[in-house]
Amino acid sequence: MKPNVAAAMAELSHLEIDENPATIRNKSRDFFWYSPVLKAEMDHLEADFVVNPKTEEEVIEVLKTCYKHDVPVTCRGGGTGNYGQAMPLAGGCVMHLTGMNKIKEIGAGYVVAEPGIIIKELDEELKKASGQEMRMIPSTASQASLGGFIAGGSGGVGSANWGALRDLGNIDRLRVITMEAEPRALEFTGEELHRVSHAYGTNGIITEIEMPLAPAYEWVDMFVRFDSFRTATEFAGQLAAEPGILIKLASVYAAPIAHKYFQRVKAHVTENDHLCGVMVAPQSMAGFQTLLSRYEGGEVIYRSDDVKWDRHPGPVFEYGWNHTTLRALKFEKDLTYLQVRYGDDIEKIMKAYETFKDDLYMHLEVMREGAGLSFAGLPIVFPKDKAQLDDLIAKHEAMGCMIFNPHRYTLEEGGRQSTDQRQLDFKREADPKGLLNPGKMIAWDEPDFDYADMYSYAKITPKPEAAE
Amino acid sequence: MKPNVAAAMAELSHLEIDENPATIRNKSRDFFWYSPVLKAEMDHLEADFVVNPKTEEEVIEVLKTCYKHDVPVTCRGGGTGNYGQAMPLAGGCVMHLTGMNKIKEIGAGYVVAEPGIIIKELDEELKKASGQEMRMIPSTASQASLGGFIAGGSGGVGSANWGALRDLGNIDRLRVITMEAEPRALEFTGEELHRVSHAYGTNGIITEIEMPLAPAYEWVDMFVRFDSFRTATEFAGQLAAEPGILIKLASVYAAPIAHKYFQRVKAHVTENDHLCGVMVAPQSMAGFQTLLSRYEGGEVIYRSDDVKWDRHPGPVFEYGWNHTTLRALKFEKDLTYLQVRYGDDIEKIMKAYETFKDDLYMHLEVMREGAGLSFAGLPIVFPKDKAQLDDLIAKHEAMGCMIFNPHRYTLEEGGRQSTDQRQLDFKREADPKGLLNPGKMIAWDEPDFDYADMYSYAKITPKPEAAE
Ligand SMILES: Cc1cc2nc3c(=O)[nH]c(=O)nc-3n(C[C@H](O)[C@H](O)[C@H](O)COP(=O)(O)OP(=O)(O)OC[C@H]3O[C@@H](n4cnc5c(N)ncnc54)[C@H](O)[C@@H]3O)c2cc1C
Ligand SMILES: Cc1cc2nc3c(=O)[nH]c(=O)nc-3n(C[C@H](O)[C@H](O)[C@H](O)COP(=O)(O)OP(=O)(O)OC[C@H]3O[C@@H](n4cnc5c(N)ncnc54)[C@H](O)[C@@H]3O)c2cc1C
Repeated sequence: MKPNVAAAMAELSHLEIDENPATIRNKSRDFFWYSPVLKAEMDHLEADFVVNPKTEEEVIEVLKTCYKHDVPVTCRGGGTGNYGQAMPLAGGCVMHLTGMNKIKEIGAGYVVAEPGIIIKELDEELKKASGQEMRMIPSTASQASLGGFIAGGSGGVGSANWGALRDLGNIDRLRVITMEAEPRALEFTGEELHRVSHAYGTNGIITEIEMPLAPAYEWVDMFVRFDSFRTATEFAGQLAAEPGILIKLASVYAAPIAHKYFQRVKAHVTENDHLCGVMVAPQSMAGFQTLLSRYEGGEVIYRSDDVKWDRHPGPVFEYGWNHTTLRALKFEKDLTYLQVRYGDDIEKIMKAYETFKDDLYMHLEVMREGAGLSFAGLPIVFPKDKAQLDDLIAKHEAMGCMIFNPHRYTLEEGGRQSTDQRQLDFKREADPKGLLNPGKMIAWDEPDFDYADMYSYAKITPKPEAAE
Repeated sequence: MKPNVAAAMAELSHLEIDENPATIRNKSRDFFWYSPVLKAEMDHLEADFVVNPKTEEEVIEVLKTCYKHDVPVTCRGGGTGNYGQAMPLAGGCVMHLTGMNKIKEIGAGYVVAEPGIIIKELDEELKKASGQEMRMIPSTASQASLGGFIAGGSGGVGSANWGALRDLGNIDRLRVITMEAEPRALEFTGEELHRVSHAYGTNGIITEIEMPLAPAYEWVDMFVRFDSFRTATEFAGQLAAEPGILIKLASVYAAPIAHKYFQRVKAHVTENDHLCGVMVAPQSMAGFQTLLSRYEGGEVIYRSDDVKWDRHPGPVFEYGWNHTTLRALKFEKDLTYLQVRYGDDIEKIMKAYETFKDDLYMHLEVMREGAGLSFAGLPIVFPKDKAQLDDLIAKHEAMGCMIFNPHRYTLEEGGRQSTDQRQLDFKREADPKGLLNPGKMIAWDEPDFDYADMYSYAKITPKPEAAE
């Protein structure tokens, strides 16, 4: 351990610190292994020590002390991010926040909470206390933290109705601690929210969050079978489009995903069945049934309010979003995936479906976007190395599909490959030494980077082979 | 009174019957006078008697008795319809339903109620009992009945989020009594709802209604001032488009409507100010403010959660939908209006705004429609006779604007000028003698009608002059 790191750790020794190597390794890793590319780059990364603050005062103390000693701080919630967001590229301190998990206030339509609370627990408490729930949750809700969702996520279950996290009104207020000689606590609302939301903790640590809520309903989880992928897709789109039908999820899994990878669904489908996974409010079931009857061959094979299967499949949302790939990975560990945006263009989706038959299985999620809809694709991609993946991405882009590359660990490469000026400006203010989650914001490290190939952080901890 | 009518009335004498001529006249009229065209055609119309059933059994008795004696039955709720929907073209019995006003069940996300309940009272009860409210209400909610809304209305306050009443999932179930020798009670859901919803009571009487609900919030009513009509329109559209901002109303009133006709607003605007009337959920106020700050010159001049005006303007929704025209009519009784659909095409709106500067003041309501939005226009039209109005309508249609003509009393002319086969088929089943609200469904009376000019029911009670 470098002397500056040791000094910081010593100064923080009255806090809850993990020194056990297994714990450190564990808390230094997230779901980066989802990507074969990131797995190759990041598998060796580890923090020097892990600290577990329980209050904002302790967070401030960690940031102040690490600032003094020039120690990098990478923040971590549930560690479910799948781009290595929470992994310390240059070692140093991992600050684990799940101990900071209090709910501070529940009001009509909103909640104020600490960042470390696990989203599922928050949702259960909200429902019990007020009949409300989060507008949207990641499919990892049972492990993910609220702060990690805001700093590292983008939307998910609920986006079929409420759009993405970044849409106006989906985050109300964030309280943020800067990493300076004297850390400041700042409160952000409105346009300022985007300084730190989805910034991977590179420019401040979120210590309090105010989120808008939705009414909690006894959502009816369903699987709906179709003979044709096009029909399944059209149905999912129209379901989300109907303003009078309240839904929380509309996923489409092209054949043979359900038969091949959904263990508890397998017995109820053939390898030619295309499936929709949906969550519908009970009072919208009549409208749902009416709509479904307009689509040829659509058949509800499972509904959570009337379970006829021997083995309960669990929540349907845990088949959607990134969980589709997760389920496939359990069967074939070399599979991977992409993140595609098709807009609301079903013909483009059908073209991709035909064109990439030998490369991937289609998986779609419907989201509200602007005044309309957008289909987000999270296709299951057959085993590919980095060059093949890059080629597949290029082919998608040539077809007019936008790609958010999940095989990169920087903010820019996972996004629109351009500098987010607000995030960069705020990093200049809030993290003058560049110690917060270093290496994740290209604009900070290398403003002239040309995106010709994958970015590689210059100061990343070298791989053991290379270090030997 | 004709002998058959007298016989029916005598047989129903144990029910609550109105015979006082002033009461009969009163309960035979609705807001038909809104249209100068309808006023000229319908002002003389009156029922022979009015019956006020309190239960479904009594409704059945009225229908059975009137069937036996061939007496027309025109049903009436609050009598706020503005196309003369509830007016008895051929006299006979007016069946007044506001005595049938019980709430039968309130559940999570739905309510079951009788048709005669006044919507505002229903909403207050829902809020008190369960923190819920109707998804959408007409701006006449304080006088209109639930049954009249379903049989005669189309949407309103809430449609900015939930779309129109006819959209799938916005009505759950209707119980309907037929007019036959032995009236039957039928239950409709799904596709069958459209047989009787928005059918003006021409093919059955609705006696029980199940509606989906939304959470009730302390909506923040606001007036927002703009310098330019385009900016006000763009803002209202974007406000409704943002998936993360929860709203209930987005109206646009072009200058000088607010200054000229909104008495309690007048002191706070100039005749050049364009106004938006909006209702925003409290937890969406932050998102609302952020959005507003992106629109040049947008300024909140009134908000209900922080009233600074000496005289309270009342609910902002009572400035929107058809209430805009109502307020104008209080100042200039010869004004009239149109119902226009511009889709989501703001350029088309701007073109109409320029083209019809000398004919009307623009007033828009934003609604969700399908996956997107639609602007509904309810412009205040300067005094015009029937020929001039027809000309103005033709000019709109030539510009690609769809018109729902509010100067007609038939279902077809107020709609898409085509037969609704489901409504017609069901009328054949449910009202074989054609006694329910006669003269309102052209397809029943005159299948070959060509829509070249206004339809005139052959058996309408002649005007006094003509009868003299
Ligand atoms: C199977 C699977 C399914 C997924 N489904 C979804 C989905 O549906 N939608 C979605 O958006 N994502 C999804 N993800 C990604 C991820 O699970 C979520 O974004 C999750 O909300 C991250 O929360 P976490 O607590 O695990 O964050 P972590 O992984 O711990 O952290 C994520 C990022 O946020 C930063 N961070 C954490 N807490 C703070 C804080 N308090 N202040 C500042 N920065 C902080 C970290 O430094 C890191 O950069 C999925 C991932 C997997 C593996
Ligand atoms: C100022 C103003 C503003 C308005 N704003 C709106 C608006 O925002 N949205 C909107 O949709 N409408 C609006 N309207 C029209 C009207 O007020 C509403 O549609 C209202 O809901 C009608 O309800 P009511 O009880 O007054 O119906 P009534 O006028 O009594 O009846 C309407 C029609 O329904 C039939 N009917 C009534 N009850 C039954 C029943 N139980 N079974 C079968 N048929 C029945 C009647 O025969 C009649 O044809 C407005 C009208 C005015 C004058």
